[in-house]
Amino acid sequence: MEPFGLRLHTKMAACSHLCVGIDPHPSILADWGLADTPENLVFFGRSLIDAAQAGGAAAVKPQSALFERHGSGGIGALEKVLAYGAEVDMLTVLDVKRGDIGSTMRGYAEAYLADGSPLAADAVTLSPYLGFGALRPALELAGRTGRGVFVLAFTSNPEGTAIQRAVTASGLGVGESVIRDVAETNAGAAPMGSVGVVIGATVGSLPPKGAQLITQVNGPILAPGLGAQGGQVEDLGRLFGRARDLVLVTSARTIAGAGPDPERVVAAIRHSAANLSFLGI
Amino acid sequence: MEPFGLRLHTKMAACSHLCVGIDPHPSILADWGLADTPENLVFFGRSLIDAAQAGGAAAVKPQSALFERHGSGGIGALEKVLAYGAEVDMLTVLDVKRGDIGSTMRGYAEAYLADGSPLAADAVTLSPYLGFGALRPALELAGRTGRGVFVLAFTSNPEGTAIQRAVTASGLGVGESVIRDVAETNAGAAPMGSVGVVIGATVGSLPPKGAQLITQVNGPILAPGLGAQGGQVEDLGRLFGRARDLVLVTSARTIAGAGPDPERVVAAIRHSAANLSFLGI
Repeated sequence: MEPFGLRLHTKMAACSHLCVGIDPHPSILADWGLADTPENLVFFGRSLIDAAQAGGAAAVKPQSALFERHGSGGIGALEKVLAYGAEVDMLTVLDVKRGDIGSTMRGYAEAYLADGSPLAADAVTLSPYLGFGALRPALELAGRTGRGVFVLAFTSNPEGTAIQRAVTASGLGVGESVIRDVAETNAGAAPMGSVGVVIGATVGSLPPKGAQLITQVNGPILAPGLGAQGGQVEDLGRLFGRARDLVLVTSARTIAGAGPDPERVVAAIRHSAANLSFLGI
Repeated sequence: MEPFGLRLHTKMAACSHLCVGIDPHPSILADWGLADTPENLVFFGRSLIDAAQAGGAAAVKPQSALFERHGSGGIGALEKVLAYGAEVDMLTVLDVKRGDIGSTMRGYAEAYLADGSPLAADAVTLSPYLGFGALRPALELAGRTGRGVFVLAFTSNPEGTAIQRAVTASGLGVGESVIRDVAETNAGAAPMGSVGVVIGATVGSLPPKGAQLITQVNGPILAPGLGAQGGQVEDLGRLFGRARDLVLVTSARTIAGAGPDPERVVAAIRHSAANLSFLGI
């Protein structure tokens, strides 16, 4: 496969910067008239992929936790959703927030980023509490298989601030150091690298060095939190400045909440995508 | 069920402070003459649980990543290993290092800590990059179902230092703030609380405030890294001081590496457990 960064760049240029979250919470399944079963998780996921395709989204983002609730049956459902995404050429960003060390990290990489793995996605989210360097096995395997990763930097919840804005020995804050490490990894890639960062749409503003570093990130910026979590489209331009053309904006509840009528879901996706293009992203 | 903290305290007093890692790496499976299949992951896990029981370990710690490599089939194998642990009354600490926010964190909590979930373990590991407060849904559900959690503080790998020793606005380091939050959560519990911390056996020493806070943690301390990762039993006494009677020491490769002969695995467990009791833990 071509590198994830190139594939996503092409999709964002041709379609939009919108990523549709696939978050099968019990409450949204009930709103759709669906019992909370693995079979219905597949139906829910496939429906959102079809709508994402029809509405011009660049990617979908299944939330692993909500499949893991059902154990191996839920993971089987997730495999089917990911396979359907691949079948219809919809990019999948699997939100798993994994992070570990050494051979265990290689295990996670093989699970989600290896060719032929039943859970392989186009990209996954990773959590850097054990160090950015500890994630290398995933970055390396993703590089070899044309896949990507998004490393958490600043998340959209208030409880994350204490750790993400703590100051490292280098003088940079923790989240800023993640942006720096991602930028270094992507240096020289064109049109952009395959290693992204996660920065919540609701973080308000980046610290001064973070605002400078984000302009050099040269990789995709996954921004959740728009809509139900309170983020406004207007915040994005201020938050990301001239890096805003690298932003992939996630929206989940606003879109699934328009369902189950497929036409209404497609309309919600078109509306969200148009909001983003109005901003020039 | 009785609270996890009480159950683990009883096991550590009656058996030992040793936790046997269940890490089905391809290389160790090959050493055991096993093909890397879900069926053999079940065999490997059950064999180690039997040996842990016979050798006097307090708990086992399956590593989720190495099951996830096999997709839904691997998760099905993990379910069987966890169910076998429950059947023979062996405490299971599932190493998943999950961490997210809001309803997604509740999804992870339901997957691993709810009664009746196919992946329910006695305790899980959690990663606090999104904030200790974001983990509350898991702490609350664990409290209601008699289960426990272990929150990453200081890990055994060198790449973790930059983030884990970064300084928060409170003046405490990141890892120290995790120990403080855990200590506050466990305050007043007897014989100890059900919220633990993870501190690698190889971290060398804790920062001064961390060394003081760990004496107030009043919950279990999961210490991986002994053996193959280079940690020495002698380090534990120095690292944990008078909190060393709360330490649950994980060993994986040293023990599984003695296999596949069950008697040799049991002997390796007895030897590791005796080393710990020689130190007074």
